[in-house]
Amino acid sequence: MSEITRFGMSIDNALVRKFDALIARKGYASRSAAIQDLIRDKLVEEEWEVGDQDTVGTITIVYNHHTRELEHALTDMQHKAFHQIISALHVHLDPHNCLEVLVVRGKGQDIKKIADRLIGTRGVKHGKLTMTTTGKEIA
Amino acid sequence: MSEITRFGMSIDNALVRKFDALIARKGYASRSAAIQDLIRDKLVEEEWEVGDQDTVGTITIVYNHHTRELEHALTDMQHKAFHQIISALHVHLDPHNCLEVLVVRGKGQDIKKIADRLIGTRGVKHGKLTMTTTGKEIA
Amino acid sequence: MSEITRFGMSIDNALVRKFDALIARKGYASRSAAIQDLIRDKLVEEEWEVGDQDTVGTITIVYNHHTRELEHALTDMQHKAFHQIISALHVHLDPHNCLEVLVVRGKGQDIKKIADRLIGTRGVKHGKLTMTTTGKEIA
Amino acid sequence: MSEITRFGMSIDNALVRKFDALIARKGYASRSAAIQDLIRDKLVEEEWEVGDQDTVGTITIVYNHHTRELEHALTDMQHKAFHQIISALHVHLDPHNCLEVLVVRGKGQDIKKIADRLIGTRGVKHGKLTMTTTGKEIA
Repeated sequence: MSEITRFGMSIDNALVRKFDALIARKGYASRSAAIQDLIRDKLVEEEWEVGDQDTVGTITIVYNHHTRELEHALTDMQHKAFHQIISALHVHLDPHNCLEVLVVRGKGQDIKKIADRLIGTRGVKHGKLTMTTTGKEIA
Repeated sequence: MSEITRFGMSIDNALVRKFDALIARKGYASRSAAIQDLIRDKLVEEEWEVGDQDTVGTITIVYNHHTRELEHALTDMQHKAFHQIISALHVHLDPHNCLEVLVVRGKGQDIKKIADRLIGTRGVKHGKLTMTTTGKEIA
Repeated sequence: MSEITRFGMSIDNALVRKFDALIARKGYASRSAAIQDLIRDKLVEEEWEVGDQDTVGTITIVYNHHTRELEHALTDMQHKAFHQIISALHVHLDPHNCLEVLVVRGKGQDIKKIADRLIGTRGVKHGKLTMTTTGKEIA
Repeated sequence: MSEITRFGMSIDNALVRKFDALIARKGYASRSAAIQDLIRDKLVEEEWEVGDQDTVGTITIVYNHHTRELEHALTDMQHKAFHQIISALHVHLDPHNCLEVLVVRGKGQDIKKIADRLIGTRGVKHGKLTMTTTGKEIA
C-alpha cells in the first residue's frame, strides 16, 4: 500500500454532526475513510468526463433470450470489442429474462460507444453503463 | 457563523495529489473548503431521498410562449402551489422561447409533484428540478 | 409553432400499460406529449456532453450572506462573466441564508467553468448547475 | 414474447429530425425501439424510487486485495446477504487491484443497504450501485 498524508481539517460543527450520523448509517470505519470515498467518487467522475484516459466500467444489460437472433447478435458484438471487454457474467433471472454484466476497459469514449451499441440492440430491455476506475491512480 | 471542529485526516498520498489538482482547477481556497462541499452535496442528496423534510429547490422550465393557453395554465398552477413557490424569474431567450426558474420550498415529495405537473404541461419543452437546501442544517 | 410529423409506434402491451400509469401520475396530456419530453431530455443531455454548442443553464447557490466578503466576491465574479450570465434571482431563505439562481447562456464548457468558480467560493454552502436548453433546436 | 400495441405519435418535425440523428449514432434499429428504451429507463427509475418492489441491480467495487482482512470482510458480508446476492464476477485489473461485480436481487431499499456496507468497507477504493430490473414488468 502507498504512503499516507496527514493534514488538519476545519469543518463547521453542525456539518460534522450531520456527517457523523451519515457515516454511522453507511457503516464507515472513520471520517477519513468516508471522505476518501467522496474524493475518489469526484475523481472518477472527472476521469470519465475527460474521456481519453484508460479506465474501467461495467455494462449491465437485461434481455429476453427468446428474442430471435439476440444472443447471437450480442455475442458477435462482444467479440468485435474483445480488446475492451475483459469478461462477462451471465445470470438467469427467470425462464425468459437474462442479465449480463460485462467488465470493460479502455478509453472512456470507446467504452461509451460499446455500451450504446449493446444497449441499443433490439431485444435488450434495459441497459446501463457504470463508470468506475482502474484503481491505479486513486490508490 | 457557527463554530468550527478541527480534526486530522489521513489520506493516501497519490489521492491527495490528484485531489489538489482538482481543487486548483475548480478554484477552491483550501482542502477543507473542497471537502466541505463534497460532504454537503452528499447530505443534500440524502435529505431529498428521505423526502419528508423541509427543503428548497428550483424548477427550471423552457417553453414557447406562443403555445395557446400555456402561460395561463402555468400561472394558474403556480398560484395553486403558492405556499411552496417563493418567487420566479422569467427570461426571454428569443422571440418565441422563455425560460422560467421558480424557487420552491417544502417537503421533498410535495416539491417533486409540483415539478412533475409543471414539466408535464403541454408546451413546456424542457424542465428540471434542482434539489438544493434551506442552508439551515448544513451551516 | 412548427410542423408536426405523424408516425406509428409499436410497443409491447405490458410496457404501454405501465407507461400509461406513469403518464397519469405525472399529469401528461397524452402519450405523444410524454414521449416528446423523454426525447428532449435525451437530446439536452447530449447537447451538454458535446460541450461546444450554444446552450442555457441555471446555477443555483445557497450561501450565508454574513460570510465576510462573500457577496462582494460573488458579484465580482458575476460581472466578469456578464456575457454569459443573463439575469439573477435572489431569495432570502431566513435571516442568514440566501438562495441565488443565475440564468446562464453560452457554450457548455464555459458555463461549467463559471459554475465551478461560483460553487467553489468560500461561504457558498451548496451549489448546482442545471443543464437545460435554448429551446431553439428542440422546437 | 408478449403482444404489441400500435398507436400513432405526433411529434414536432425539428425534434424528429434531431432524434433520428441520435438514433443513428446510437445504432437503434427503429424509432419504436429507441422510444421503448427511453420509456423503460423512466420506469426503472421510478421502480427504484418507490423502493419496496422486487428488483435487480449490480454492485461494482474496485479494491486492493493486499489490504489486510479486506477480502475476508467482503466475503463475509456477501455471505450474510446471500439471499440477495445471486452471483459475483471477479476480475484482476493488475497485480494489486481487483474489480468485483455482484448481481443482487431484492427490494430496492435492502439492496441499497447492502451496497452501502460494501462500498463503505475499508480498502474499497470505488463502488457503485447500478439499478436495473427483473425484466418481468417491462416486457
